[in-house]
Order: sequence, then structure tokens, then C-alpha cells
Amino acid sequence: MNKHALYHKSDSLYAFAVTDDCVEIRLRTARGDVAGVELIYGAKHAFCRHRKTAPMRLATSDELYDYFILRFRPDDKRLAYVFLITDGDGKKWYYSEDGATERYDFSLAYYNFFQLAYINPNDVMPRVDWLSRAVVYQIFVDRFNRAEDGTDAGFINLKWGDKPTPKSFAGGNLAGITQKLDYLTDLGVNTLYLTPIFTSVSNHKYDISDYYNVDPHFGGNKAFGELMDACKARGVRVVLDAVFNHCSDSLKEFKDVCERGAKSPYHDFFVIHGDVPSKRPLNYEVFADCDYMPKWNTANPAVQDYLCDIGEYWIKKYGIDGWRLDVSDEVSHGFWRKFRERVKACGSDKVLIGENWHDSRSYLRGEQFDSIMNYAFTKAMLDYFVNGTLTPQELCDKLNGLLMRNITQVNYMMLNLLDCHDTHRFYTMCGCDENKLLCALAVNVFMPGATMVYYGTEIPLEGGYDPDSRRCFDWGEHAFTHRVKELLKYKKLRALAEGEVRFGTENGLFTVERKTNGQTATLFVNGTPRAVETRGITVGAGRYAVIVE
Amino acid sequence: MNKHALYHKSDSLYAFAVTDDCVEIRLRTARGDVAGVELIYGAKHAFCRHRKTAPMRLATSDELYDYFILRFRPDDKRLAYVFLITDGDGKKWYYSEDGATERYDFSLAYYNFFQLAYINPNDVMPRVDWLSRAVVYQIFVDRFNRAEDGTDAGFINLKWGDKPTPKSFAGGNLAGITQKLDYLTDLGVNTLYLTPIFTSVSNHKYDISDYYNVDPHFGGNKAFGELMDACKARGVRVVLDAVFNHCSDSLKEFKDVCERGAKSPYHDFFVIHGDVPSKRPLNYEVFADCDYMPKWNTANPAVQDYLCDIGEYWIKKYGIDGWRLDVSDEVSHGFWRKFRERVKACGSDKVLIGENWHDSRSYLRGEQFDSIMNYAFTKAMLDYFVNGTLTPQELCDKLNGLLMRNITQVNYMMLNLLDCHDTHRFYTMCGCDENKLLCALAVNVFMPGATMVYYGTEIPLEGGYDPDSRRCFDWGEHAFTHRVKELLKYKKLRALAEGEVRFGTENGLFTVERKTNGQTATLFVNGTPRAVETRGITVGAGRYAVIVE
Repeated sequence: MNKHALYHKSDSLYAFAVTDDCVEIRLRTARGDVAGVELIYGAKHAFCRHRKTAPMRLATSDELYDYFILRFRPDDKRLAYVFLITDGDGKKWYYSEDGATERYDFSLAYYNFFQLAYINPNDVMPRVDWLSRAVVYQIFVDRFNRAEDGTDAGFINLKWGDKPTPKSFAGGNLAGITQKLDYLTDLGVNTLYLTPIFTSVSNHKYDISDYYNVDPHFGGNKAFGELMDACKARGVRVVLDAVFNHCSDSLKEFKDVCERGAKSPYHDFFVIHGDVPSKRPLNYEVFADCDYMPKWNTANPAVQDYLCDIGEYWIKKYGIDGWRLDVSDEVSHGFWRKFRERVKACGSDKVLIGENWHDSRSYLRGEQFDSIMNYAFTKAMLDYFVNGTLTPQELCDKLNGLLMRNITQVNYMMLNLLDCHDTHRFYTMCGCDENKLLCALAVNVFMPGATMVYYGTEIPLEGGYDPDSRRCFDWGEHAFTHRVKELLKYKKLRALAEGEVRFGTENGLFTVERKTNGQTATLFVNGTPRAVETRGITVGAGRYAVIVE
Repeated sequence: MNKHALYHKSDSLYAFAVTDDCVEIRLRTARGDVAGVELIYGAKHAFCRHRKTAPMRLATSDELYDYFILRFRPDDKRLAYVFLITDGDGKKWYYSEDGATERYDFSLAYYNFFQLAYINPNDVMPRVDWLSRAVVYQIFVDRFNRAEDGTDAGFINLKWGDKPTPKSFAGGNLAGITQKLDYLTDLGVNTLYLTPIFTSVSNHKYDISDYYNVDPHFGGNKAFGELMDACKARGVRVVLDAVFNHCSDSLKEFKDVCERGAKSPYHDFFVIHGDVPSKRPLNYEVFADCDYMPKWNTANPAVQDYLCDIGEYWIKKYGIDGWRLDVSDEVSHGFWRKFRERVKACGSDKVLIGENWHDSRSYLRGEQFDSIMNYAFTKAMLDYFVNGTLTPQELCDKLNGLLMRNITQVNYMMLNLLDCHDTHRFYTMCGCDENKLLCALAVNVFMPGATMVYYGTEIPLEGGYDPDSRRCFDWGEHAFTHRVKELLKYKKLRALAEGEVRFGTENGLFTVERKTNGQTATLFVNGTPRAVETRGITVGAGRYAVIVE
């Protein structure tokens, strides 16, 4: 047995409560290395005397590892357990905190059993169900649609349809979104995620100078209220962009520090290495290298309150459904803990989705975010459909491995994406191959969690890296839109909202099976250059097919 | 290369800030498997363009793994990195979030580098320095010493020195401790940890009915105030026992629920499966099987406030130095986060030490406890000195593995113990071998963190499991006391407070080296049946020796 591969930790993503009375236990072993695993468990205080045994299921595998999983309802909320592993030679091993051993002394087990010491309900991460059913349409507001609302259009410097530069203003606004809501719901969208809408001098508005007012170019708070009303009338949810890592150097608090230096009450709102902020040499912390985006000092309780107030305001006043958290990994954990408390106090279904590009377990334990934008999924889609560095089996392995980075509840809330305003468009990456884009989007639709669709994917819009990925929407007719609409309909299937997921391969196809009580939906993706027959259907070369049973 | 053995995670105990400007990065590999590891790192936003490389040190090993460690001050607070591993055949491997690969595309690194996204100072776990220098004497109050204080002694039912039963009262009190403070400081003690002192019908007082009043048998709040004054005068710190998992069924709030059922405002203070609490059948959650110890519902914010108030009261009013947290692993994480905030607001040097018997990383990330009682160390000492199941080399491996369970700051705050009121006495476990007890205590003294000495260890007191481990102290003369006193003096060495630790073997001896700038202290433990010479000294069979350079 490969002892080096064994992994388990108490009270971790390998041992967690799914609900108040149900736990999930995972054990990692080397792939193909062990014949079976049983869980020996009991109530913690009585484990030396009373124990039960249950077989664990080889639930999933990635490149290197098998994962044995057992989900069950323990008799007692204080769970102690060790594993009994049968290796490839039929030999039995106990696996405890002291590692794999041939013998195990249950009379001394209180020193080294694994445990979920007690299921306290406030520590159980709840699943926000609507995210599992969400088709989230991301809108870069300046480029989606302009409705003439009578306000000054003098700021517009980009003719609709021309290629944008970093300083382009095309004039897209919130009224323009309201105008297109029926189009979006018809497409299958049930959630909007808007890039920042608050007052800012830029077109992207990630440098905010007033968090309480929607930018006049977008129509101000009035237009936002009207958009919210129209969304509510249609059952469309709205997620806004919380830019809490940094602000604009035009924010009045930062300007006060520029004027008064350390005498300003806001000096500690930022991270300034000196008295007065200076751009040359730069003496304060910023986002990336952008001196016009001073970093918030989110370690400061006053800043924490300031930002929490904003988070609460837009939920309470306008009823938004949650926040996408910009550059969330560079913001302090301590702040996010407070922010979650404040937001969830407004409604347990208000969501918090981090812009974390990496393995983000440290933000996803239940007391910070609900989920993140799933860029690791993006990378897997690129590697399979664009770079060609993954076979169908390797794609299974990769996606399985990603699921094993987090607890199950988080996986069902992930915001899965192919692209966004910060990447090349997937369509352009795959050489403008509509079928590839559709197949990748189909995998996204079949992933547990929310499916994000970057505006224009459905027409499909081309675009390289920023600013090219932020082109103006083309409101002409597009045959492709219908194909996207047909695909997004699957998101309404119960199996896709609730079902267990299993990635597989079949006759050279990549498959995703989603299965719940009474319904199974299976996606077949044909990445081969020829049609493939399977289960009585034919999947064209480069096409996808779905069977719902 | 054994890919299965490789382990690293962003923002975890494998990558953490030690101070606001210093980080520690760890990589796990199979033992003896790789020739070297370099860290390729840079500022997160510029990692594709600018990178540095630094060699990592093979810092420690356990049974299965090597741990390469680098501690350094990055130029930028936003750290991105991948590893470059040279395997045993001289082949190079990149190791990123996508695993070990022969090639690595730095232009796409933002998808899969590892990171410490930003060092926010409020997320850096501080080290409470006094714990690294602490000799903590644990007192089971009823059995340590009785001072006649004029109060009623009618409750005493155990003659001092007779064997205790579960219901024995020997009459030890706080005035008795005050009386012996000079004895304790002379012994080398600088911290007291008292088992519970609040009002309770039991001798152990883990079933508390009034958290605001010291039990009259112990002398009440007045005697406690006098003890605190005497301790402060001598620079002795005091840690009390926080029994927040459960209380007594005599607590007035629980009694109110017994009387009024669900109509009581305190019904949700406990976890009652029904209206009125019932003992037969038991319908409420308790500690272990003890129906007289109802479990607090620490998921309830009102209970959280109730218990936080208590925690704060004894610090603010009497100046205690922190809390040992009883059955802390069964109490909710959410509660402990609040409790830490309240306690640390009283003073950053107030400590929180959990009674967690297991790998407790989930409580030791910086926002809950400072450390735990190190029962895994206890088990290692038993396995080496008593059970004989570890060789000196295996003991090194075991202790190294325990250090790798937590971040460095936590290791320097651990409460290391050989025994306590909940175990057999170590002296009895090792067949009343004074030398073995002393050698084990010497290892404890040389561990990073605090050394706990259970009352009576220095005389040495015998004792099996509870209640036998709680015998009355024998205040006669004991030659052994002097040997313990000589040993505890080493705790004052700078090397033992601050020094890096390295476990080793040398001519059959087990060694612990502690090394800081300008001072090295090395402990030699001879577990062999014959004297061993090393470095010009002779270590007798079963004895220990120390060299300070």
C-alpha cells in the first residue's frame, strides 16, 4: 500500500457536516491501490466500547488518487472514527491520526482517533439552493446596451461596435439592461451579475469614488431602482460587484489623506508608508501597479464597518441578491468574516462569491464566502478544448480533483465560467469554433453550481484580452443564440440542480452524468473528428448530446 | 519521484505569515525522495514577468515525509510562487496547483501558481511570548493544600492522604495555594492552571452552577482575589478552567427550563429534544453520558454573549492571564471566534488553550485558540518511555510530524504535558521509575511551548485513572523535588524560549537541540541500559544530560 498517498484530517474538507444531522467522510488513497475501505465509527465518548462499521464508496478519482466517501447520519452528534483499509494484497490496515498501522488499540483510541467532535449547527455551512439553478449573465455595463434616457451622452467616445480601447465609453447603461430583460429571460438567464456600477471615472468602474451612488453614466440610483423592479417582476436575481480591495484615488476619504496626511482621520483607512500619499515614488499599497487604486486597509475595524455598511445598504435598500467580491483573496479574512455576518443577517440566501483564481479552501470553510468564480474550471476547459493538453479521461481526473478541493455544499454553489471581462473570450481562444464554445458551455451547464455566461457569448462575440474582451454587444440576429438557448434549458432539470455528478468517458466521448432521485441527465461531448454512436444516439464530431431519463 | 507524497496548499499551514513581513513556506515530499527544492516566487501581479529563486532547506522529516521549509521576507506583500523540485535522478519538476509537471508556462501562471495573496496584519497569528517561557503548574484544587481559613470544614469527607473516590472532598482551597506560592516559585513555576474553581457540588467542579462565584469550599471570591494579589506580587500568571461546553443541572437557567419548559427564555440555551428536560429517557444533550451536565447550546448568540461575559469578567475584575478551555472541541467554532475577540480585546497576551486531544488545526488558524493541551505529545512520551513502541529515531519522526501539524507560532504556544487530572499519572504509567519520569519531563522542558507540570509530579505522586490521579499532595520532604527543580531551571534559557528545535539521535541517545542566536542547549536522553559517552560527557543509563553552549 502506498502509505504516502493516504490523507485524512479531522474537521476538514475530509470530514464535515452536510446538514445538522448528516456528515460526509472522505479518505484519499493512491489511485487503484486499495481494494476497499470501511469506516469504524461511534460516539466519541464511548468509542472504546461501542462501534459500528460501514463500507465506504470509491466515489471519485483524479490523476493520482482515489477518494472513498461515506455520507451518513450518525446516531450521536459526537463522531469518532478510524478507517480500516484493505490493500491490494488483501492485507488490513487501520488508519488513524497515528497513520497506517497493522494493529490498533481501541482502548487508547481517545489519543488518536479521527473525529468530528460535535455537530454545532452554526458551524454547518448551508447551501444556498438557488445558486445550483442559476444561469448568471455577466454584464460589462458600458458595452451591453444603451437606452436613450435623456441624460447627457457627451461622455461617449466609442461608436457602438467599434473596437474598444482602455479609455472607451460606449454608453451602455442600466436602462439598456432593463430594456433587454425579456431577451435575457427568454435566453434562459435567471440572474444578472453586473460589473461595478458605482460612481467612477473609468469605463470598468473598478476604481470607485462613491459607493452609495450609481454612476450617472449608467443612469444613477433611479435607473438602478427601475432595473431592480423589472428584475423582481421577472424573478431575475441581481448580484453586484463589491470592490472592497481598493477604491479610487478620487474617493473623498483618500483625498482627505492626500490633503492632511497623518492628521486625517482616514489615514489608517489605507496602507500608507509615510505621512502623505505620494505617487512618485509610490508610497502606499495599491491594486496591482495602479496608483489610482489605493488599497483599503481591511485590517482596520473602521474600514471593516465602512465596507460592511455598503454591503448592507444595497441589499436592504434595493434588495440585491448578493455580491461578487473583487480581488477577494487580497482582502483580509477577518473582514470577510464580519462581512458575511452582516450580509447573511439580511437574508441567508444572499450570496457571497469571491473572485479567487486559486484553491480557496481558506475562504470557503463556511464563515466567509459561499463560493468563488471557478477559474480552475476555466483552465480545465481551456486545456481540453483549446490547448488540447487533456484527454477526456484526464479531463475527468482534473474536474474530479477540483471537486475534492472543497466540501460538497461549496461545489453546488460554485460560479462556473468559461471567460469574463478579465480573460480572453473563450470563443476567440478556441479559434471561433461555435461547436467547441457550445460544448464547453454544455459542460459548464452540467457542472454542479451556477453557470455563468459572459454577455455576448450567445451571439457569439469575439475578443482577446482586455479591452478587447469588452466589445459592444451586437444586437443583430444571430443563429447561434438559439443553440445557446436550447442548451441553457437543461439548467432547469432537477438532476442538474440537485444531482450527484459523475464525469466519465464512453467510446471516446467525455461524459457528465447528473443523477438524482428519479432523474438522470447525461451529457456527451464528442471531441473526436468523427461521429460517435453510443446508447442509441449519434453524437456528431465536435458536437454534444444530452440524454435525460 | 513519489508524486503521491507531494503536498502543498496556498494559505494554509504550508504557507503562512509568521509576522507582518515574514512568511514561511513548507513543501512536503516523500522521505529521502528528492535531492532539493527551490522556491520560485514573485509579486503576484507581476509573477509572469519578474521572479526570484531561493533554495529551500530540508528542515525536518517524519516517518514518511521530508519537509522543505523557507522562511523569508518577500519584497511584496502579494506572494505568488511555484516549486522547482530536483528529484533523486536529477530531473527537474515544477510543482504548482496543477501538480508536478515537467514544463510550466509562467505566462499562464495566474491560473495555477500557489499564493499568499496578501499579508493582512489582522490575519497574522501573533505569538504570545510568555507561553514559550512558561512552567505551568496544574492544580486540582481540592487535593493540593488546605489552609485553615476559618470557614466551615464540614463538607470534608476524605482524610488528607487517603485514597480519593469520585465523591471525596479533601478540603484543598485557594488559601492553601496562596500559602504555597513561594514553594512553587522556588520550584521554578511561573504560571498556575487551576481546574475549575466556580460554584459546583462536585469536587472537580466541572459542573458549574454559578460562573460568577468561586466555590465557598475553595474560599469564595475573596480567597481568589487574595491568591491573584499574591501571584501578581510574585509575577506568577494564572490560567483558569473555562467550562463552556456544559454546565451543572443546578444552574439557575437550566432549572428554569426544567420548571417552565419551552416557555422559559433559557430553553434554547441548551439542546433539548422536547419541551421539558427529562433524565429518563434522557432528552437533552449532555457532556459524555452525564445527565447532570447539560450541554450549552453555543450556536445560540445569547449563550455566546453569556459565556463571553464570563470570560471577560474574570480577566477584567481579577486580572487572570487566560483560559484553558474544557472540552473545547465540542464547542462551536463560531462561539470560539467571538470568545477570542472578547478575550484578546482585554489584552493580546491573554491566552486561550483548548482541551483538544486531536489534530486541531481547525481551531488553531489564528482566529480561535492560541494553542491546545498537547496530548499527542503525551502519547508520544508514553509510547517511548512506557510502551516501548518507539525507537529514538521513531520518536524524532513522531515529534517532527506533530510540529508539522501546525504553524510555527502555535508550536511555540503549545501546552505540553505528560499527564493531568484526566489521565493516569505518568509516574505510575512508567512503573514508578523516577528517572524515566525525569527524562520525559526533560523532553517536555525542551519542547517549544509551555511545560505543564501536574501537581505532585515533583514528589512524585502516584496515581491511576480518575479519581486515583487526583490524590492529596504529600507535604513531607521529597528528594525528587530537587531534581525537578534543577530540571525546570533550563526553561529560563533563551534557547528554550526562542530557539529552533531539532530532534535527533546520537550514539543511541535521543537528543533535542534548541538553538538561537548565540546559544545552543542540547538535551541527551539515555533510554539504553548502559551509560553512553558523547561530546565529552557521560549520560548514565536511564538518565538525561544537558549541554548549554
